[in-house]
Amino acid sequence: MQFLSDNAASVHPRVWEAMRAADATDTPSDGDRWSQALDAAFSALFGREVAVLWAATGTAANCLSLASLCQPHGAVVCHEEAHIEVDEGGAPGFYLHGAKLILVPGESAKLTPDAMRMAVDPIRDDVHQVQPHAISVTQASEYGCCYRPEEIAALGALAKERGLGFHVDGARFANAVAWLGCDPLDAVGGADTLSFGFIKNGGMSAEAIVFFDPAMADVARYRRKRAGHLQSKGRYLAAQLLVMLEGNLWLDNARAANAAAAEIAAACGDRLMHPVEANELFVTLSPEERKALRTQGFSFYDWGDDAARLVTAWNTRADHVSAMTQAIAQL
Amino acid sequence: MQFLSDNAASVHPRVWEAMRAADATDTPSDGDRWSQALDAAFSALFGREVAVLWAATGTAANCLSLASLCQPHGAVVCHEEAHIEVDEGGAPGFYLHGAKLILVPGESAKLTPDAMRMAVDPIRDDVHQVQPHAISVTQASEYGCCYRPEEIAALGALAKERGLGFHVDGARFANAVAWLGCDPLDAVGGADTLSFGFIKNGGMSAEAIVFFDPAMADVARYRRKRAGHLQSKGRYLAAQLLVMLEGNLWLDNARAANAAAAEIAAACGDRLMHPVEANELFVTLSPEERKALRTQGFSFYDWGDDAARLVTAWNTRADHVSAMTQAIAQL
Amino acid sequence: MQFLSDNAASVHPRVWEAMRAADATDTPSDGDRWSQALDAAFSALFGREVAVLWAATGTAANCLSLASLCQPHGAVVCHEEAHIEVDEGGAPGFYLHGAKLILVPGESAKLTPDAMRMAVDPIRDDVHQVQPHAISVTQASEYGCCYRPEEIAALGALAKERGLGFHVDGARFANAVAWLGCDPLDAVGGADTLSFGFIKNGGMSAEAIVFFDPAMADVARYRRKRAGHLQSKGRYLAAQLLVMLEGNLWLDNARAANAAAAEIAAACGDRLMHPVEANELFVTLSPEERKALRTQGFSFYDWGDDAARLVTAWNTRADHVSAMTQAIAQL
Amino acid sequence: MQFLSDNAASVHPRVWEAMRAADATDTPSDGDRWSQALDAAFSALFGREVAVLWAATGTAANCLSLASLCQPHGAVVCHEEAHIEVDEGGAPGFYLHGAKLILVPGESAKLTPDAMRMAVDPIRDDVHQVQPHAISVTQASEYGCCYRPEEIAALGALAKERGLGFHVDGARFANAVAWLGCDPLDAVGGADTLSFGFIKNGGMSAEAIVFFDPAMADVARYRRKRAGHLQSKGRYLAAQLLVMLEGNLWLDNARAANAAAAEIAAACGDRLMHPVEANELFVTLSPEERKALRTQGFSFYDWGDDAARLVTAWNTRADHVSAMTQAIAQL
Repeated sequence: MQFLSDNAASVHPRVWEAMRAADATDTPSDGDRWSQALDAAFSALFGREVAVLWAATGTAANCLSLASLCQPHGAVVCHEEAHIEVDEGGAPGFYLHGAKLILVPGESAKLTPDAMRMAVDPIRDDVHQVQPHAISVTQASEYGCCYRPEEIAALGALAKERGLGFHVDGARFANAVAWLGCDPLDAVGGADTLSFGFIKNGGMSAEAIVFFDPAMADVARYRRKRAGHLQSKGRYLAAQLLVMLEGNLWLDNARAANAAAAEIAAACGDRLMHPVEANELFVTLSPEERKALRTQGFSFYDWGDDAARLVTAWNTRADHVSAMTQAIAQL
Repeated sequence: MQFLSDNAASVHPRVWEAMRAADATDTPSDGDRWSQALDAAFSALFGREVAVLWAATGTAANCLSLASLCQPHGAVVCHEEAHIEVDEGGAPGFYLHGAKLILVPGESAKLTPDAMRMAVDPIRDDVHQVQPHAISVTQASEYGCCYRPEEIAALGALAKERGLGFHVDGARFANAVAWLGCDPLDAVGGADTLSFGFIKNGGMSAEAIVFFDPAMADVARYRRKRAGHLQSKGRYLAAQLLVMLEGNLWLDNARAANAAAAEIAAACGDRLMHPVEANELFVTLSPEERKALRTQGFSFYDWGDDAARLVTAWNTRADHVSAMTQAIAQL
Repeated sequence: MQFLSDNAASVHPRVWEAMRAADATDTPSDGDRWSQALDAAFSALFGREVAVLWAATGTAANCLSLASLCQPHGAVVCHEEAHIEVDEGGAPGFYLHGAKLILVPGESAKLTPDAMRMAVDPIRDDVHQVQPHAISVTQASEYGCCYRPEEIAALGALAKERGLGFHVDGARFANAVAWLGCDPLDAVGGADTLSFGFIKNGGMSAEAIVFFDPAMADVARYRRKRAGHLQSKGRYLAAQLLVMLEGNLWLDNARAANAAAAEIAAACGDRLMHPVEANELFVTLSPEERKALRTQGFSFYDWGDDAARLVTAWNTRADHVSAMTQAIAQL
Repeated sequence: MQFLSDNAASVHPRVWEAMRAADATDTPSDGDRWSQALDAAFSALFGREVAVLWAATGTAANCLSLASLCQPHGAVVCHEEAHIEVDEGGAPGFYLHGAKLILVPGESAKLTPDAMRMAVDPIRDDVHQVQPHAISVTQASEYGCCYRPEEIAALGALAKERGLGFHVDGARFANAVAWLGCDPLDAVGGADTLSFGFIKNGGMSAEAIVFFDPAMADVARYRRKRAGHLQSKGRYLAAQLLVMLEGNLWLDNARAANAAAAEIAAACGDRLMHPVEANELFVTLSPEERKALRTQGFSFYDWGDDAARLVTAWNTRADHVSAMTQAIAQL
């Protein structure tokens, strides 16, 4: 009974089918019709013209996004526990050629305009100090919490006011939109770029980089190739993204994962360290309790000494959810 | 009838099966058993202990290899038409943090020890000049020609003598080994690292970076993550590589492609611009001749004004080969 | 009456003389005799064989040092208020090709082994996390406080134990040695590299990068040229360093600056925010008090809303010191 | 009798005086009045508004210029023997974060519009190929030859037409203007940035980076600090530049050097490998002839096996020039 990660989940059957369909005939690399269909498909989803590139990992999607918004001598403002800071092996430093991350604290890994101002306002406009060029927020956050449309719009507005680029790391964007129940566009707060994750949500190897200013994609295409992320058989990546948008498979998958998380959350009571607004649960559990759960066949990661992280996925089985719910209730 | 590129070819059915098999159960990202099996599988192939990392593109494989062999203030010596110089969008400059490529001429895109010495010997050991740190050769070359074991060994020996790292770009390494009929180890000339290509040879999205000094892989792992090339569902990449080695599928595929190329080559006579030693043909063809071929349903790329490049693949159909052979003969 | 910065001070007359002496005859750039004399002069000072390069700024000296100790995918551990973090315009990100700074808190901008362990121990040996490669400490610290020989030796020992490089930013190293009264070697705690500052201490444009492992300098020479820091008329920089070591001019200058600071410190009482162990004073002063001092002709920088930074230099006049001492006493 | 390099020459007495004058009083680093006077002084010289930053080396001046004109994923087109390619230790790769140099041949190290087109036109607008972002030419060229105003204007026009930045490496710009006898502005051909050299022309440690679009300087200031090239006592660099412009000392020095070269050139006849249009002579001289000259007390560098490079400077003595002239005539 696996609650380790949504990355551990299998690939959705419809994604397999779409990839196989893309295999039917030989297809040249350049301008395959799947990749060419991305702009229209995502433009329809967002209700405005966007340009979209696939990338094989969330780290690449984030860093190619940020490279569009921050020059090497600038800085990206982000939460101190942002994925780009703590989990990407220094990739932003690589892709941004040494640009800096300015770290900001905040509840449940969410930024607020006030916290951002406290970080940015003391920076003198002086060559000795690295100037902020962009802001990056994660929707849903690293603790599985969602920015409400008005919250993320306020951050976006602040970015614009200060002349900063605005990036949304949406590794679990689907879970956020499913939970918020809003239009996808309202969940990005006027972002310039969005890393729209599909791999944790039933995909195999394709994330979408959404450029809300399509011209940005033209430059990003060069950077993607330069980073070794242009796959010659990219049609198999594009096919994953396209099928996800068809009939809102992405939303269905996310809703399933969220529902599983919500069911478990209901049994956790005061054990919850953060509101459960997506598919992650951070649960206070003593070492003995974690041991007891593991003995019953549950797998998950420890979160420090006294807690665990449980993650549900599009394919988390109902019986596993029930079992976990009961097991926690009985601790 | 597609002779555009081996990149345009479909994925081999056994590769699909292996990927599906890796899908049977949820699997955590870290240390999945497919990725963990790579070292042993490739060590068996090469008859010595190697360490292997997957990467999604040949560009990434080359650049992660080279980053192990060349510091930012150094240079890589390569052929002036090497893929790393002309076709990777400047990726070596990115991955090697501004290291330089020193370009050397040579017949059929092959380097010789003499040509290398002519390029390297005049470099003064002086801080004004960028010092060579590594050599990179392509096996088979960009013109589909193979280094004989003794040829590549001579280059490897020269590299060692000068204290330079030695990298082999093996985007079509399978085709080279199939043509040479030698032990794979004899085709790398004592290389430190090999980019062993599978995507052009029936794979989907996985190349192998082979480190003949396994300790190098430990550092390269960090660089791979930092470049956004660590896929969370990497088991699907590892599965592609493993199945390719099973029963020598990689060699069978390459032999099929080579045989198709050889059959067409026999009809080309003096039109051949380079010996056909792998699965690429560079054929003198006037604009009218190319037009005639295209009218008959053949697709391929122009190579300058008076020639074309034809590429065969693991799945090039016998009837297409016969048709092309006849069509060229009748020009 | 200038207490703004030791950078604002004039150049010592003996430094001028030495530069003029280096001007007497035309001298080729390569291997001028002044630059060649540096190794011996500094080896004599430290009582062991070192190799020394000049650099025109402390930022360049720090970053060329660190580039010898930290690879692009690694991190440097330093104080959260270290000069390399807050005052160098992101230069470490540039010179280290995107390596990270891991920030550690500590009283008076000093690191302790415990604080370092708290920062470093939680880093998993996992490609998702940037691994520490080096430690950098500032002697005297950014708040003008000195590591005692045993304190800095403990940090150096910890670095060695963890396999980390150890760098000392000695922008005010002279002031530290003068205050500690110890052998210069005892003030570096077994460092691999030292940025030995002279510009704040009466020089014009030359700092020394001291490599305690001389072989490191051979590579650093290439990096210095690559950074555009190899001056063709470098003899004028070397001459500055050599004259500073002659008759211990560097120590005399530092003692003069320290003595001026100590005299003012004696008048500050509880106003002192940090012990005065070099030539900087951080003094609690209300806006009104600062205004009063400025009205009397003193210049200095504010330090936040309720304090000021006063810096003395080799040439701070005794009457200015007396005046400042009196003025503070009378507030 | 030194003909090695103009870098080997001493510093002009008026430069010394100006530096000493800048030493008269303590001066804060930020916005010293010498540095602040640069824009006006150079704007007067060029007859239009420019912004100017000092830098301590020509390499830094070139690379900071180019970083303003070329993004990391782009390329700079330059002569295959350009200083930035062969003599800067890979600094452009460092400052431009891995951007590429596209090398173009040309007589006497000069580019022509035709040669440029031949290099640039075949580059497909395709992510696999690095796109040109800027052109860099050297005035006077690496072989001491000058672009006539109409020649450099044609290159500048081509750059504009193609949307490329245009940089002039003017390490010996003074010698070029002196020889051309034209307005300085006419010698730069509509450049965006000029590295205006003073060090080879009697300065000590200051070159000027001239931005013909002053807004570019605002960003370059950040890059200069980030590269460790912001000197805290920068007033001594600014003072060098200012005195050079006073009364056209820069032109007088260059004229003296050029005249010395011209006098020697007159004795060289067919031995001259390139026209002598500045202060460098490339002279066919057999090993025996070079030995004979050295025996007579002349120092200079070999240029390959059968030639020598002679360089004159602002302070080359008339008797040395006569002696060299006679010695060559008598060979």
